Amino acid sequence: MADQATKTFDVIFEGKGVATGKMRNDISVEWPMMKESFELATDEGPFHGGDGTAPPPLALFTAALTGCLMTQIRAFAKRLKLDIKHVEVKARLHWEGEQVGMEPYVTAPVGFSLDVDIDSDATGEQLIHLLDCAKKG
Amino acid sequence: MADQATKTFDVIFEGKGVATGKMRNDISVEWPMMKESFELATDEGPFHGGDGTAPPPLALFTAALTGCLMTQIRAFAKRLKLDIKHVEVKARLHWEGEQVGMEPYVTAPVGFSLDVDIDSDATGEQLIHLLDCAKKG
Repeated sequence: MADQATKTFDVIFEGKGVATGKMRNDISVEWPMMKESFELATDEGPFHGGDGTAPPPLALFTAALTGCLMTQIRAFAKRLKLDIKHVEVKARLHWEGEQVGMEPYVTAPVGFSLDVDIDSDATGEQLIHLLDCAKKG
Repeated sequence: MADQATKTFDVIFEGKGVATGKMRNDISVEWPMMKESFELATDEGPFHGGDGTAPPPLALFTAALTGCLMTQIRAFAKRLKLDIKHVEVKARLHWEGEQVGMEPYVTAPVGFSLDVDIDSDATGEQLIHLLDCAKKG
């Protein structure tokens, strides 16, 4: 059947960051395929030499990961014809850094956990399949 | 020397996402160690069933990656005692998706490129070392 054909598609985002304040970065993000653009910014608090005018990069990263999973859960629920009443996700992102004296430190991820709460009449099996699809998406 | 001791530290961010609009997610992000919290949101444009009230998750991801590298460049320039006049970064994030009919698709990263432009009197070698440190940070 024509609608069962396998197709591939590209997802491309472009960012242009400019250092502005002491630690602030203004970043224009474009999604060319959708002709959409977004003005975003990061900063650091005074402890890290910034002015706290925007969230730090890792706060955006946490929101991106959390939002991405939540968006895929709802988008794929439609495709799988599952009725989803509500979704909440609690995420915990953990990195560890190592430094010698005041030399630049090295960080690595320790673990990212996402606790997903879905209010739905679907079966547990259906919801596990949905979650599996959302992770792959 | 005491100040050359190796020490490790944890970096933990927590996100709490709640589905609000059609595709909108409101996400409270906390950085417990710094006692900081940030209210962020994601949405999708009308083409993807949303209302376009906030950037899509991948736009936040693009800004997070770009901002993270830029922040580390400036933070580590101080530690390495390099004078940095200006920083600009152009990022291109490319994923590829594959789908069969209208089933949930599967995506994977193809490549992320970051083109870094640093205005500084430091030598090329010093700047390459700085960039290497920033990537590891």
